[in-house]
Amino acid sequence: MPLLPELATPCLLVDVDRLDANIATMAELARRLGVALRPHAKTHKSVEIARRQLAAGAHGLTVATVSEAEIFAAAGCDDLFIAYPLYATAALGERLSRLATRSRLAVGVDSAEGARALATHLAPAARSVVRLLVEVDSGQHRTGVLPEEAGPLADQVMHCGLQVAGAFTFPGHSYSPDVRGGAAVDEAAALERAAASMRECGTTPEVLSGGSTPSAADSRGEVLDELRPGVYVFGDAQQWELGVTGPEDIALSCLATVVSHAGGRLVLDSGSKALGADRAPWASGYGRLLDHPGARIVAISEHHAVVEWPAHEPHPEIGDRVRVVPNHACNAVNLADSLTAHQAGRIRERWPVSARGANT
Amino acid sequence: MPLLPELATPCLLVDVDRLDANIATMAELARRLGVALRPHAKTHKSVEIARRQLAAGAHGLTVATVSEAEIFAAAGCDDLFIAYPLYATAALGERLSRLATRSRLAVGVDSAEGARALATHLAPAARSVVRLLVEVDSGQHRTGVLPEEAGPLADQVMHCGLQVAGAFTFPGHSYSPDVRGGAAVDEAAALERAAASMRECGTTPEVLSGGSTPSAADSRGEVLDELRPGVYVFGDAQQWELGVTGPEDIALSCLATVVSHAGGRLVLDSGSKALGADRAPWASGYGRLLDHPGARIVAISEHHAVVEWPAHEPHPEIGDRVRVVPNHACNAVNLADSLTAHQAGRIRERWPVSARGANT
Repeated sequence: MPLLPELATPCLLVDVDRLDANIATMAELARRLGVALRPHAKTHKSVEIARRQLAAGAHGLTVATVSEAEIFAAAGCDDLFIAYPLYATAALGERLSRLATRSRLAVGVDSAEGARALATHLAPAARSVVRLLVEVDSGQHRTGVLPEEAGPLADQVMHCGLQVAGAFTFPGHSYSPDVRGGAAVDEAAALERAAASMRECGTTPEVLSGGSTPSAADSRGEVLDELRPGVYVFGDAQQWELGVTGPEDIALSCLATVVSHAGGRLVLDSGSKALGADRAPWASGYGRLLDHPGARIVAISEHHAVVEWPAHEPHPEIGDRVRVVPNHACNAVNLADSLTAHQAGRIRERWPVSARGANT
Repeated sequence: MPLLPELATPCLLVDVDRLDANIATMAELARRLGVALRPHAKTHKSVEIARRQLAAGAHGLTVATVSEAEIFAAAGCDDLFIAYPLYATAALGERLSRLATRSRLAVGVDSAEGARALATHLAPAARSVVRLLVEVDSGQHRTGVLPEEAGPLADQVMHCGLQVAGAFTFPGHSYSPDVRGGAAVDEAAALERAAASMRECGTTPEVLSGGSTPSAADSRGEVLDELRPGVYVFGDAQQWELGVTGPEDIALSCLATVVSHAGGRLVLDSGSKALGADRAPWASGYGRLLDHPGARIVAISEHHAVVEWPAHEPHPEIGDRVRVVPNHACNAVNLADSLTAHQAGRIRERWPVSARGANT
């Protein structure tokens, strides 16, 4: 009997019990650290999962784009942070201004140009309520100014007539087996320096916001006010290989069918159009198998995943089903229209991926 | 004035003139080779583009999944090949049987188990009209039996009461700077050996089907009956770096905004949720810039692309827009709900990506 025979493969499964446990564990960690939890909703893009996070004590949501914010605001979330240095056009400014009428809204900024575009295109009423957080670089070297530039930039933002609420960083260099917890140290140091720089310029930051799933457990509650992890809600093969989670706690998998044994290979129908093509330099493959920790996806194409199977374990047969753990949950979820929520081996419901493709 | 200011970024653009030229060039190549052209629609997933390919002389479409076949059949395409070794469940067999009532239909097979599942679950009427093509491995080492196993497998397929129409291969090892045209030699050799094997077992193959964009120009028309390239319709950064196409012929790009200059970096809003995370081992980065061939995307995350800019060229400013060429067109298109077709600098229309996410 194949696994969940009523489902066509490939499709994404969410184990509801593990999901709820992961939500509770992170909520408890935030309470213990004395920080507010504002989970990043780009991971799940699901109104149902956001509701569970908020019910467990999250203070609001983090999103990456205006369209994600619009979707979660429409679903009733009234406290949103777009943790991204938006560049506002007239149309984007209009959308943000509308959003600000129905949700408490914060937005990232890392340049004077970005601040000026926001000031130009936000409606006057929005300019006085949208809260800007200056993005600082704590070691990922993506977006974000140097911590010591936070004060001068906050000054420029306020000179545009906008409100500065504090600073944020994403310690994304935690996504490396060598760094992980060390990134939390860098994060705290960067936010402290940013706060000092802002105070020197006459601004007292209300919020110092950080967080990533790999670094969360090492967060410095004495510095941070807010934590924004995303992937923890599911876990994925990256977190597994970083040692942040184990297969027993991973809530997201892709149900896949063995379609070929040609040439002694084992090929699944879960390709990069179902799992994503993410592969960090340190990853052992393109995904793992939830119930076969020794197996590795060694090659991926759009509709094929070639698996290397452990020598001592019996191969699944053609037509058998397995559960694949995507390397990167966020990109896998963004490929699906819905998530199949299951509990104790039974399908409970379908959750739409409401913010799928919400990139703008 | 930013590029196409009426569009929110990131979003996918299709240059209609280049698209039509690429369609015409491949149609002409197929005529010159004396083979039927059956373009792979998984690249564009668009009914509008499929119509243009058929109008230019394509004999039918190739698709990867039953749901893609359903979408193109509903749009009027009456000759489809699902070039994939499907494993049929009862539900999949029912869908295939329905498809076979409105479209000429061929399906791949590379195992006796796959054949038996199809025989079990296809309706009797479908069993006599669905044409099976035995998949052979010509060097990619993904799915497909060895060429000399094609005859015995064809025998097993027919013993299940199914119709064998021939053999197919995907010379996917053409996606390498060292192989490319050489893959066409392997493809022809594998199909010739498969045909010989089938004839030895008493089956005369009607169709020998091959093709990939990098190997297409070197295809052996004297062996092949049919060519199934996909990416040629757009081109992408992989084809550019393989030397198959140049930026002047690439029809697909992602309009992106420069959002940050922090730390002297150049960051675009076209991340892996817009471009895909594909990066072949030989690729120079995560995508290229259509109008700046010296630039490279050196790091990508979901909503950020970090660009290394050529030292001698002036940087674009924050708020400027650029056109990014995704590494892999097929995965980028599958992330978008629609394609914005433009011609001579003007937006012409929106084409829905009708088969987006059609994985099952």
